[in-house]
Parts: sequence; C-alpha cells; structure tokens
Amino acid sequence: MAELRKDYILDQYVIIAQERAKRPSQFSRSPPTPSSDKDCPLCPHNEHMIPGVLEQVGDGRGGWLMRAIPNKFAAVGQEGSAALSTHDPLFVHGLALGEHEVIIDTPHHDMEFEDLSVEHIERLLQFYAHRARVVESKPHVRYTALFKNRGEEAGASISHSHAQIIGLSVFPPAVARLFDRAYDYALRNESCPFCDVIRREKHSKRLIFINKTFVCIAPFASRFPFEAWILPLRHVPAMDKLRKEEFSDFAHMLRKVLRRLGTLGVPPYNLVFYNDERQGMFHFHVQVLPRLAKWAGFEHEVSVPINPVPPESASSFYREG
Amino acid sequence: MAELRKDYILDQYVIIAQERAKRPSQFSRSPPTPSSDKDCPLCPHNEHMIPGVLEQVGDGRGGWLMRAIPNKFAAVGQEGSAALSTHDPLFVHGLALGEHEVIIDTPHHDMEFEDLSVEHIERLLQFYAHRARVVESKPHVRYTALFKNRGEEAGASISHSHAQIIGLSVFPPAVARLFDRAYDYALRNESCPFCDVIRREKHSKRLIFINKTFVCIAPFASRFPFEAWILPLRHVPAMDKLRKEEFSDFAHMLRKVLRRLGTLGVPPYNLVFYNDERQGMFHFHVQVLPRLAKWAGFEHEVSVPINPVPPESASSFYREG
Repeated sequence: MAELRKDYILDQYVIIAQERAKRPSQFSRSPPTPSSDKDCPLCPHNEHMIPGVLEQVGDGRGGWLMRAIPNKFAAVGQEGSAALSTHDPLFVHGLALGEHEVIIDTPHHDMEFEDLSVEHIERLLQFYAHRARVVESKPHVRYTALFKNRGEEAGASISHSHAQIIGLSVFPPAVARLFDRAYDYALRNESCPFCDVIRREKHSKRLIFINKTFVCIAPFASRFPFEAWILPLRHVPAMDKLRKEEFSDFAHMLRKVLRRLGTLGVPPYNLVFYNDERQGMFHFHVQVLPRLAKWAGFEHEVSVPINPVPPESASSFYREG
Repeated sequence: MAELRKDYILDQYVIIAQERAKRPSQFSRSPPTPSSDKDCPLCPHNEHMIPGVLEQVGDGRGGWLMRAIPNKFAAVGQEGSAALSTHDPLFVHGLALGEHEVIIDTPHHDMEFEDLSVEHIERLLQFYAHRARVVESKPHVRYTALFKNRGEEAGASISHSHAQIIGLSVFPPAVARLFDRAYDYALRNESCPFCDVIRREKHSKRLIFINKTFVCIAPFASRFPFEAWILPLRHVPAMDKLRKEEFSDFAHMLRKVLRRLGTLGVPPYNLVFYNDERQGMFHFHVQVLPRLAKWAGFEHEVSVPINPVPPESASSFYREG
C-alpha cells in the first residue's frame, strides 16, 4: 500500500509508492560514453576557452589540483542595480544580479568525483567552503547556492567533474521557508530540528553510515529514489565552520555514498549544499539527489513527488551495496 | 543581461537568462522512434492487460473513441483510513489514499494528441472534465490532479496518448499556497488575479493567441522554455463549468499551440490542469510545460528555475511558427 509522508519540517508531502518499488538493480544503467578532453573547456590544455581563473590550489609542481573560474555562461550578471521593480505587483522584476563561478574538481578529464582520493575530496570540500564564503561576502549577494550536477539528466552540460556556486541578490523564497521552518521548530522545541532528526534516525532503519563526526541517512520523506543526506553530528551552520577532522570524516562518507551509488552504472545526480552563512542557526548538510526517476505532470502540478524506492530500502542498498 | 522575474502571485522567482538564449531551432529534436502497438496496454486488442474499464465513449459502431481505466500501477490506494499520524511532528505519515485513473485519448496507437481532430479533442476535454468531477466527488478525495505526460523526458512510460487523474486524500500544500495567494489578491484588489493578468497580457508581447472565449499567453515568469498558459476569458473556476462554445474554442487553441510546439520535433511536455472544484474562486487554466531544459542542482536547491527562453521570444515562436 502506498504511503504518504511529510518532510521533517516543510509542508511538503511525498508518496512512497511501494507497489511501484523496484529492486536496485532495475535502476542500473549503462555508464555514459566517455567524452573527449580535446574540446573540454575545463581541461588544463584548453585555458583559452575560459574567461580566467579566480583562484586555484597548486599541485606543488607548477600545475593545479583544483580551481575556481568565472562561469562563461553566467546565469546572473555582476553589474547594475539589485533593486526590484515592485510598483506593479503582477509584474515584479529586476536584474538577475550576483556571482556565478565554476569549481573544477581536478585537472583530469575522466576522473569521476568519487574516484578522487579521500585527501583530494577533503581539500576540495574545503575549497568549496572557502569559495562559497568569498561569494557570500560580496555586498550584493544575499544567498549563495553551492551544487554539483553529474550526468546529462541531472543538468550537467560538461562531463569534466565540477561544482558551481551561484550568489544571488535575492534570498530565494523556498530557502527562506526552509530556514523559517527550522527556526520555528527550534523556538518551539528548544532544539535544532536536524539535531533531533539525527538523534532519532541514527537508531532507525534509515541510517546509512555513521562515523565519529558525520552521519548519512535516507530521509523519511525522500523525494528521489536513493536520496541521501549527509549531516555533521555537531550543530554547524555552514561548511566553513567544520573542523579539520570533520572535513576528513565528511570526505570519507561522501565518497563512500557516491561510490555505492555509482554501482548502479554512473547514474546522474545532483549534490546540493545547504549553508546558512547569515543567520547562523541552520544545520549545514548536503543532499545527494540521484536523478533516476523523471518528474512528470503530477510533480509539477501539485509538488508531491512519487518515489518508488522507500528510504528504508535505499539505506539497505547503500549499506550492503 | 539576465533578468529576475517573480510569478504573478506566487513567491516564486525565475531567472530569464537572455545570454543563454538560443534560437527555437536549437531546441529541435529528432522525433522519438515510434513504439510498437503489439504490447501496448492501451490499445483496443490488448484489453487483457488492463484491470477494467471505468467509462468509455463509443464510436457508434461498437468500438470506443476514448475511455477511462484504473491505473494498474496506482500511486495511491483506495482502501484504509485517510487519517494522518501526526502525534510525532518529525514523522507525519499515513496511507496514500485516493483514486488514480488513466484516460486513453484515442484507440489509435500512433496518433499524437495534437493530431486528433478538433472535434475529438473537444469531446476529450469534456470527458477529462467529467472524469475529474467524478473523482472529485469521492468522499475521501480532497484534491484532484489532472495532467498529461508526453515523451519519456516528461515522465511518460507509455507512448500511446493518454492523460491521468489522481485524486488525493490530502490537499497538496503547494496548491493550497497558489489558491491562497489568488484569494488574497482577490480580497485586496476586488478582482481575480488571472482576470487581471488576462486584461494586461492580451495587449503585451507575451500574447500568443486569442479567440472569442480563450486566450493563450507565455507567462511573465515562465519557468520552462516555451511555457504557455491557456485560460478562459470568462472567470470559470473549473473545466466542467465551461460552456459548449468555450470547449470548442479551448480545443482549437490547445491543438494549435501543441502543433506549433510539435514543429520542434515532437518534444516532451506536460499539460497540467488547475481546477478549483471546492472553493470555486480560482480561475481554471491549463499550463503547457515543454521539457526541453533539465532542472539541475540549482533548481532543486533554491527552486529558482533558469529559463534560457524569454517568454517574449516564446510567444513569437508560437505566433509565427
């Protein structure tokens, strides 16, 4: 019998359609055809194809390990006024202002993120955190989105491993709702909702992995098949507040989760990082969103995703995969 | 310069990324390979593959023109209690109860919806309205979603033209927000927001088509490339309240829009129908959502779609296509 589940704190329902459940192997895909590095703008020999380099981490031998570059096809611009024209309530608009950069994870064209060494991923997460903080500190930026798209179906237009940062001059209403809900919960319960979720889920069937400072769970109201959240056990509002050993545990866990997911045949996924740089009361976490099911008319009409994989099965897949 | 636009009434922004704009021809796709009707459960000779027929419209010669059948892989069940378990606020859940049916648009396996005759589409829209009303009248149904998925990328698992109706025992929060916003606007302005939108957009660059009783526009804050909304000029809360001549004008316009869209090579799309059967203050309309761009990590993190096609270009494409 299909089940209806509400998100921990958001007014967001999902349908866990057990009748439609498949075995993990039925989600398996053939790995995508490797792309050529000849025309790849993110490769070291194609520097003429990029607008410049914002910052990079050297390899100690004249090369680089990772670098931040401006997005050549930026979704937001850097010049003009951030004011919204609001005098006509049906037609509110303004310039889409902010920052849009790309972080190239590695100089190697055909390395998947999860095939990088733990040390490299640890250094990369620190670099992500640092660049997100740099973007956040710009005066016209009100919210900084940090995310990674892997695979065409997950919206990646370039296969060379990379992440993106978009700093926006408006605070996105959907994120404001999330932060408000967390704050409301904290006020009413004198406790962070994510700390409470961790306390409860680490003894549930939805636990995937736990180490000294990090936990990974399949969330109760998973919207995507094999959705996984990775959270620090300690209440930390933003990634740049993590300690050295936490970064290491984080890298270990993220790599492990993505490698298990990869056994389905290099599936498309998004990683989204929820940082709270301003109010500082949110609980930093990363959501792994595999894109193995299509959102159809129903999802777009009523915003109630239908997920054929119960999180209790997803957690078994990751643990035993 | 990229532009930020807010939805007419929702707290929902989009980025219209003009720098990323392409010419309509760049969205062109090769039409999908036609599927075989041999194993199609919606074809007239495969009745043994479906659980039964709920209602059908005959062709006067012993056959049928369109029919409603139960969805064999229903996302919601029909038995049990609709009560949600809410005593534990972090883990709210219940049975996903309701109705899930499929409407087969035509007995012909390889007819696209937009290739049906205007008279057939008119009759079909009346049948959709009637079935949505039947589902809505069930005591355990609180909201009825009516939608159509065309093409694999739009979530269609069967290529034979069909629509779906899902009656839910919960009112989806996202739809509640939409209805609330419309109601708030109406209270403050003594006018339906969609009536006001029509009044304004029918003289704007975003007008696509207009006839005696219907209008089609590319909405100001389009989330999808070539998004189009079709609305009755008269304030009608639900499709089954349309008059005979309105159904005819509606069918004409919907067919024309989808045929123009089809010149891009049978692209994937969703049609979503917003009916307000209960409160009766909403303005019925259909959204045509072409699925020519992928939603990536940014869309899922912050719910701010990036649309490379300004609605002003989309409307030209439809008008001149």
